[in-house]
Amino acid sequence: MFEFKIKNSEEKARVGELTLNKNVINTPCFMPVGTAAAIKAMSTSEVSNLGYNIILANTFHLMLRPGVEVIKKHGNLHNFMQWDGSTITNSCGYQVFSLAKLRRITKEGVHFLSPIDGQKVFLDPKKSIWLQEQFNADIIMQFDECTPYPADKKTAEESLQLSLIWGKESKSSLEKEDSNLFGIVQGGIYDELRDMSLDGLLNIGFDGYAIGGLSVGETSEERNMILDNITHKMPFDKPRYLMGVGKPEDIIEAVKRGIDMFDCVIPTRNARTGYLYTKKGLLKIRNSKYKDDLNPIEDDCECYTCRNYTRSYLKHLDNCKEILGLRLNTIHNLYYYYKLMEDIRSSIANNNFYNFIKKFYKNREV
Amino acid sequence: MFEFKIKNSEEKARVGELTLNKNVINTPCFMPVGTAAAIKAMSTSEVSNLGYNIILANTFHLMLRPGVEVIKKHGNLHNFMQWDGSTITNSCGYQVFSLAKLRRITKEGVHFLSPIDGQKVFLDPKKSIWLQEQFNADIIMQFDECTPYPADKKTAEESLQLSLIWGKESKSSLEKEDSNLFGIVQGGIYDELRDMSLDGLLNIGFDGYAIGGLSVGETSEERNMILDNITHKMPFDKPRYLMGVGKPEDIIEAVKRGIDMFDCVIPTRNARTGYLYTKKGLLKIRNSKYKDDLNPIEDDCECYTCRNYTRSYLKHLDNCKEILGLRLNTIHNLYYYYKLMEDIRSSIANNNFYNFIKKFYKNREV
Repeated sequence: MFEFKIKNSEEKARVGELTLNKNVINTPCFMPVGTAAAIKAMSTSEVSNLGYNIILANTFHLMLRPGVEVIKKHGNLHNFMQWDGSTITNSCGYQVFSLAKLRRITKEGVHFLSPIDGQKVFLDPKKSIWLQEQFNADIIMQFDECTPYPADKKTAEESLQLSLIWGKESKSSLEKEDSNLFGIVQGGIYDELRDMSLDGLLNIGFDGYAIGGLSVGETSEERNMILDNITHKMPFDKPRYLMGVGKPEDIIEAVKRGIDMFDCVIPTRNARTGYLYTKKGLLKIRNSKYKDDLNPIEDDCECYTCRNYTRSYLKHLDNCKEILGLRLNTIHNLYYYYKLMEDIRSSIANNNFYNFIKKFYKNREV
Repeated sequence: MFEFKIKNSEEKARVGELTLNKNVINTPCFMPVGTAAAIKAMSTSEVSNLGYNIILANTFHLMLRPGVEVIKKHGNLHNFMQWDGSTITNSCGYQVFSLAKLRRITKEGVHFLSPIDGQKVFLDPKKSIWLQEQFNADIIMQFDECTPYPADKKTAEESLQLSLIWGKESKSSLEKEDSNLFGIVQGGIYDELRDMSLDGLLNIGFDGYAIGGLSVGETSEERNMILDNITHKMPFDKPRYLMGVGKPEDIIEAVKRGIDMFDCVIPTRNARTGYLYTKKGLLKIRNSKYKDDLNPIEDDCECYTCRNYTRSYLKHLDNCKEILGLRLNTIHNLYYYYKLMEDIRSSIANNNFYNFIKKFYKNREV
């Protein structure tokens, strides 16, 4: 079952419900990243206790380690990692672009060497979709080429055309009736190419539409410009997913422009290097001024970490490289992101999103 | 409040209850090691959910990082690390022996350079006890010299005499009326020196007696020989603590010889390198044969890890160096140790300890 309902909109921003099988996901939503079938430093029950019911997993990584056969032997990815919520898997497009060695892209697919053991790997739309269906992902992404940044117009156009061909092949490769496939808009920083890409995808027809090729080095102005042009042309009644974004302010700006779904490694990665989210911005727990600070990371934060531990203790754990520090920091950052999305949703539901945004930026200035 | 009651004995082995303030600890007990005010990879609530209500913390490490002032600012060590159970702190003797650089031992105390920042540090009985009282530890260890192994008889005798002097000074350094101080028997592998050390300690008088200078390289035969000679000479009605021991079989052999308390980093350290405890012995999760093994670590194990995850998933997490792997492995190993102690206790309570031992070794042979 796949159903998307918009419950309220405020200008371009929308609050909605995405029903995936028996799981209802409130949108706009943030999806923590479980690259290798684990959200770094977290257990799945901790992730779920924070409120999350959808995570992203990386087909590229799981294909290489542990391999599809191992996951298949567990039945599916949910069983393998003991995750009761929904799962979206990416198609490898971005990882082939960022991680694969000696890649060679042809119309048929991509040849590359595994960054893990140097083995030759070939991926095409058929294989990417097959893998994702084997994992039993609730949302499957089309196989695409992530256009690099910067890319001249000709390169960006060739790239988006290839992604369109692969999008069509991805759709025709689906073998399960209940698979939910998202198309990916490419086109670099060129509005007319983004339009061309979207038109092509609409002709094919998908269950949802993602914007790819962002969060790859462009400025936030460029990203917002692209969103300003494209989002409202995407089907109103289908979920819109901005891949790989991002910081709290990036998410807010994208929601304002009509995006419903996000994923990003930044809250978990920042946690592990001691950067903690607060209303005022990032707090660097490594700073010596926290050595004997008895306050929680944030005074009114209700997360497990803030309810129990002082900045002083967290700084000590970071200093001693204790695993518990990585855990407590990650819990805080993922709580912050969950609460952020919850506040975004309730403000849109109450037609109060623009006040929320004003307050968000005002807090940053204190 | 400090009260120790023996509930039953079977030959030299005893099952008892140690009441520390409002906390009742069933003995024989194993105390997980929280070197830097954190049990590696674990949260205190996870440790406590496993059943543990006493942990060991390292005065040496905490003195250097975060420093006594920081802990004192939190009130005590319990508050700092959010641990509701009891805490025993060691006196630095062992750490000065194993970690300190350029140490120089005089009758007054030990001069050494901090292994963290090279700063000059001086420790004596007075300072060691003061630190432990500042932490508000429920059990405090006397300052001692950990006699190295091997040590000739003359060295071992000089060393134990120094520890006796320091033991006396440790006792007279106590400032809090409700502090519970344990003396430490030294004497290397020489029975008559162990006797001499114990006699000296008994003249001073302590709340409990520990055996130190073991788990430093001696064979298990040597260790058991020392225990055979000394344990029954230690006061029957006081807790006996074998410091830094050990493997499951070491613990069983020591309980058989009348020991009540243990601490060791081995279950948590082994967990982080993928060595997992089972009835049959250690399982090395890194072994390629577990790649697609759908069984839990141990079939009838009731721990969180075994109830939820396959060997295959744990091997995958280890392979990908996922933090969750360290966590799940540690939960299993600490559960194994808790269950081991519980089984030891109930078998002694039922005068069935020797059957338990037989079964333990028989399982190993399968």
